[in-house]
Amino acid sequence: MKATVLQGVGEIRLVDLPDPVLREPTDAVVRVRLAAVCGSDLWPYRGQEAFRAGDRMGHEWIGTVEETGSEVTRLRKGDLVVAPFAFADGDCPACRDGVPTSCGRGGFWGGGNDGGQAEAVRVPFADATLVPIRSDVDDDLARRLLPLTDVMATGHHATVLAGVVRGGTVVVIGDGAVGLCAVLAARRAGAERIISVGRHPERAEQARRFGATDVHHADDPETAGLIVEYTGGGAASVAECAGTQSALDLALAVTRPGGVIGSVGVPNGIERVDLYRFFRANVGLRAGVAPVRVYLDALIADVLAGTLDPAPVLTAEMALHDVADAYQVMDRRKAIKVAVRPAGGSG
Amino acid sequence: MKATVLQGVGEIRLVDLPDPVLREPTDAVVRVRLAAVCGSDLWPYRGQEAFRAGDRMGHEWIGTVEETGSEVTRLRKGDLVVAPFAFADGDCPACRDGVPTSCGRGGFWGGGNDGGQAEAVRVPFADATLVPIRSDVDDDLARRLLPLTDVMATGHHATVLAGVVRGGTVVVIGDGAVGLCAVLAARRAGAERIISVGRHPERAEQARRFGATDVHHADDPETAGLIVEYTGGGAASVAECAGTQSALDLALAVTRPGGVIGSVGVPNGIERVDLYRFFRANVGLRAGVAPVRVYLDALIADVLAGTLDPAPVLTAEMALHDVADAYQVMDRRKAIKVAVRPAGGSG
Repeated sequence: MKATVLQGVGEIRLVDLPDPVLREPTDAVVRVRLAAVCGSDLWPYRGQEAFRAGDRMGHEWIGTVEETGSEVTRLRKGDLVVAPFAFADGDCPACRDGVPTSCGRGGFWGGGNDGGQAEAVRVPFADATLVPIRSDVDDDLARRLLPLTDVMATGHHATVLAGVVRGGTVVVIGDGAVGLCAVLAARRAGAERIISVGRHPERAEQARRFGATDVHHADDPETAGLIVEYTGGGAASVAECAGTQSALDLALAVTRPGGVIGSVGVPNGIERVDLYRFFRANVGLRAGVAPVRVYLDALIADVLAGTLDPAPVLTAEMALHDVADAYQVMDRRKAIKVAVRPAGGSG
Repeated sequence: MKATVLQGVGEIRLVDLPDPVLREPTDAVVRVRLAAVCGSDLWPYRGQEAFRAGDRMGHEWIGTVEETGSEVTRLRKGDLVVAPFAFADGDCPACRDGVPTSCGRGGFWGGGNDGGQAEAVRVPFADATLVPIRSDVDDDLARRLLPLTDVMATGHHATVLAGVVRGGTVVVIGDGAVGLCAVLAARRAGAERIISVGRHPERAEQARRFGATDVHHADDPETAGLIVEYTGGGAASVAECAGTQSALDLALAVTRPGGVIGSVGVPNGIERVDLYRFFRANVGLRAGVAPVRVYLDALIADVLAGTLDPAPVLTAEMALHDVADAYQVMDRRKAIKVAVRPAGGSG
């Protein structure tokens, strides 16, 4: 089968690998229907994060069950399944606590594990990890489901961590796919004022379509002051969706005393967390990798009901064959997010 | 009147100052009944925190109302009042949000404001700041009330921030007065397992009397591993009551994935907050100066009902005249906390 590997900085290769097979009775083998390139895939691609030559790529994917191990009971061949970006056993203290991303036997797709930018994936702990959709799924629905595997669930996690409430105010920092999804999640949670801070005009437009009531440019030196002024002291909830030092600093500047920053951007070069400023203003910092699996059932239900549609973050789609181009397009910010489709992945 | 000032590093002086007078119609003048020396008073005393020569000292005190401004309606001459360590207007967004320590017109006792290690204090926003106890208060009750002005409310804040729940498990790091009070607060909140980490055997004993079920030495290299092991992965709630780098590092090491660190030690030399580790394990960091005023009503009610007694953290009592000795005793760790009593402050 074809699978995407990172051979060196900037070197995305589609290589031939043996088809995955069941190894454990709790495994499933899944044919990939649709995958995506994530902003965080660009870090090793750009040499900003360590990797080993040949690491598998792709942690956002949905697929169709092809084979199941003898102990898999919740999945049947032919099921369309949504895969969270992390697999987990579903049975350890961390999983029972609702933090499957800390499962001691779990892991993330890619690297030394199977990757989703491929034709097929072996899924450990398949019953606990995958969520089956037992219905015909056309291409449109597939595109609406795909973002749930990471960015939509991560945006949602930001709003959960930040304590967004119905009628409340939230500042969302970052206009990447996660930030845009956090705007959508905030609207879903009933926030009344949703303030989006980003850098790209076309993403600001998408933020407005997703429910942002105000948009600001992150580099405008007046942004923080304006937000603090018109919110009467800052927002009680701030969703930090970039993971950079400037995003965290801005988050702190616009959080109301007693408020909470929900931080879901993978920390990338954050050297300075001025704890005294958090302490002085009773501002909480809740950083976390999204426990996607925990949120999937509810998010899938809303997508199936037609009340949630994160598909607009996928602004381009290519054949898996062209996955190297997909990385280039993402790297040059010519797309918010690119979906890649294996041959035969069409609905 | 006599008042304590810090003249230089290690130089505590009791000086004569004019009696305080009403300046605003919302002021009260209060005779100090009993005050205390706080661990944080030692930082400028030791030269570890900036101060100006002649800064007033003392933010923990209770007293008797002597005079009230024309707009003060909730207080009467002769009322015994409990003063939170910060005054606040009670009417701004921060105060309405439950964070009076961020009140724009408020402040903390001491420094350029009146200090509590004195015979009398002018209290701004007296109605909003002070809580009157309209009953005879004997010396025993005074000693039980005094810790509510800071350390008991701060220990309580740690448990609130850390999300301590009935039946839950909490690790309390620090065996100073705040850490001991956090143990007491955790017991009050119904925590089932209360793990105290400190350095001093006699304080460990007090922690046990306050409700600690387990005690560990902070410098024992096995402490973190043991706690993680017997809690099955760490505690969901960790109260960090020291404010040092080693305390924060230990807190992170013993927090369960998805758990929360409530940090109430004034950050002192914390240079390193490894955000990635918090992110990776979904560990929240909620640092904050205690909004003492918010908690006072409930804590006072429990003290008056006899169900809460933090007085044991006051292990010595001296005349205000000997306040310099009180600092020395604290500095040499010969007492957990020293109360000082102005002449005429007896019940």
